Amino acid sequence: MLKFEDYVNVASRAIADIKYPATPAALYEPIAYTMALGGKRLRPVLTLMACDAFCGDYSRALSQAVGIELYHNFTLLHDDVMDKADVRRGKPTVHVRWNDNVAILSGDAMLTMAGQHIANADAAHIEPAMSLFNSTAMEVYEGQQYDMDFECRNDVSEQEYISMIRLKTSVLLGCACKMGALMADASADDAGRIYQYGVDLGVAYQHQDDWLDVYGDPATFGKEIGGDIMNNKKTFMLINAMNRATGADHDELMHWLSAVDPDRREKVAAVTALYSRLGISDLAIEAMNRYNDRALSVLNSISFPEEARRAFRDFANMLMHRDR
Amino acid sequence: MLKFEDYVNVASRAIADIKYPATPAALYEPIAYTMALGGKRLRPVLTLMACDAFCGDYSRALSQAVGIELYHNFTLLHDDVMDKADVRRGKPTVHVRWNDNVAILSGDAMLTMAGQHIANADAAHIEPAMSLFNSTAMEVYEGQQYDMDFECRNDVSEQEYISMIRLKTSVLLGCACKMGALMADASADDAGRIYQYGVDLGVAYQHQDDWLDVYGDPATFGKEIGGDIMNNKKTFMLINAMNRATGADHDELMHWLSAVDPDRREKVAAVTALYSRLGISDLAIEAMNRYNDRALSVLNSISFPEEARRAFRDFANMLMHRDR
Repeated sequence: MLKFEDYVNVASRAIADIKYPATPAALYEPIAYTMALGGKRLRPVLTLMACDAFCGDYSRALSQAVGIELYHNFTLLHDDVMDKADVRRGKPTVHVRWNDNVAILSGDAMLTMAGQHIANADAAHIEPAMSLFNSTAMEVYEGQQYDMDFECRNDVSEQEYISMIRLKTSVLLGCACKMGALMADASADDAGRIYQYGVDLGVAYQHQDDWLDVYGDPATFGKEIGGDIMNNKKTFMLINAMNRATGADHDELMHWLSAVDPDRREKVAAVTALYSRLGISDLAIEAMNRYNDRALSVLNSISFPEEARRAFRDFANMLMHRDR
Repeated sequence: MLKFEDYVNVASRAIADIKYPATPAALYEPIAYTMALGGKRLRPVLTLMACDAFCGDYSRALSQAVGIELYHNFTLLHDDVMDKADVRRGKPTVHVRWNDNVAILSGDAMLTMAGQHIANADAAHIEPAMSLFNSTAMEVYEGQQYDMDFECRNDVSEQEYISMIRLKTSVLLGCACKMGALMADASADDAGRIYQYGVDLGVAYQHQDDWLDVYGDPATFGKEIGGDIMNNKKTFMLINAMNRATGADHDELMHWLSAVDPDRREKVAAVTALYSRLGISDLAIEAMNRYNDRALSVLNSISFPEEARRAFRDFANMLMHRDR
């Protein structure tokens, strides 16, 4: 097994090596722009690690690793159009720098390019790889649709929220792990277990993301704190706050949820204080740890070298101690 | 070989048999709605015909035929968002009936479903099928981007226009034909020839579409005559009119191209009269016939039964004598 940074480098080099035709420029430049924005490259690293762990040769899954990162970035590109998000990783989003039509069409092309990279496999591997990729992609769309549906609802349950983030975020991490296992000819049981590791890690990761959006350090978080609070996003934290708040707390929460054009600093400070009074921060950290523990525990039942187990454990620890 | 109508029925039944999950409704209902709008089903019919022609068993390409029709309808769905088109086949478009976000996301899901249907093949056929599908899809995006680029240009040449419609429209007809040939294990030469038939037929078809948009019978055409003229769309006809018009004709054409909010009846009548004076109608019909002849002539070099040759000839004749 390589070190984490080395897998990142392998993935980054392969992504930088993608060849884009020169014309039409308005189709391919936004794709190159998006792929060059960076990001943590967590998904391709998981694919390479899983492949290495089961067969000792990560290069067998390199094309699929790139395909999954293309897919992930395609979802961000189209989500930014749908959310009207102006900034991604400190740079203007594609629909801002170009326009909505360019963002839609270049996103479509990225999705097809993702499929091309996944399908770049020998006859024995192409069917399982495509099947895993396509079924995961359908789940991701379902998650995105539920997320949009939840915006207009005030009765989203904790369980519904977990199901939604599982689809929207976590299954792609599971898919990244399983893809590497499939390309390495791991047993179906082990492929299923490393998939479960990825999914549980993904749920833990999203819990942490929600927590950082409230309690992160503005100096290191990379975007403004309190975005979810300002948007009344029905996260695990808001759902639980709505369930727990009574009396004056309940009235205050309702006041902020219905406030028209509230002062950002005031609203974020007030809701954060409410969360802290209601024990929501601890609740979120507990949930995060619970899913992280599940991810770590499934690793124990996988038949691969101790070194691989350690690498996936380190990956989870690294993820759970990030500050952005 | 079956009759044309029977292939249409086979394709329509397979499309009607697609199973959509019940939830999330806002993801799957727009897909079912789009696929139920109908259309001529030309592409899946070509796939079934080609497969039948080379191996006598169209069912070997049925899933791929459905996949190509899903892809075609996905492009219409996203194109309608980009063009802000309100009506498709007499019904409100998805972004009008739902909204832009639903149209973007359900289109993405259709593209993935298309890939699922194409990949539904045995180990010997999945790679060539995916490879043909993905490279064709990339060409279609390129064509759509060139089409959008041309809107802001006044110097589009006839050759550029033909290249654009070849990418945007024709290669998918070629792909539909070749897909059937691949699934039937046709020789590479024959697969290439039936691809060429489809591409040439596609260029002829687009020439005819442009002509019908000006000279079609309003009673049968299905949409309002003169849409391309009103939008100053740089079709083969407008490009040639711009090249041919001199003196007063040139001044009149320029007047209408730059007229702000002109009366529809007046502009369409004036530009149509100009086209007729300049011989543009004949020119378009000549171009259409030239490509149709090329499509028919390549059929002569394909090694398949005479019955198949006749079926593809009849298909072209049927297409060239449509009135909508």
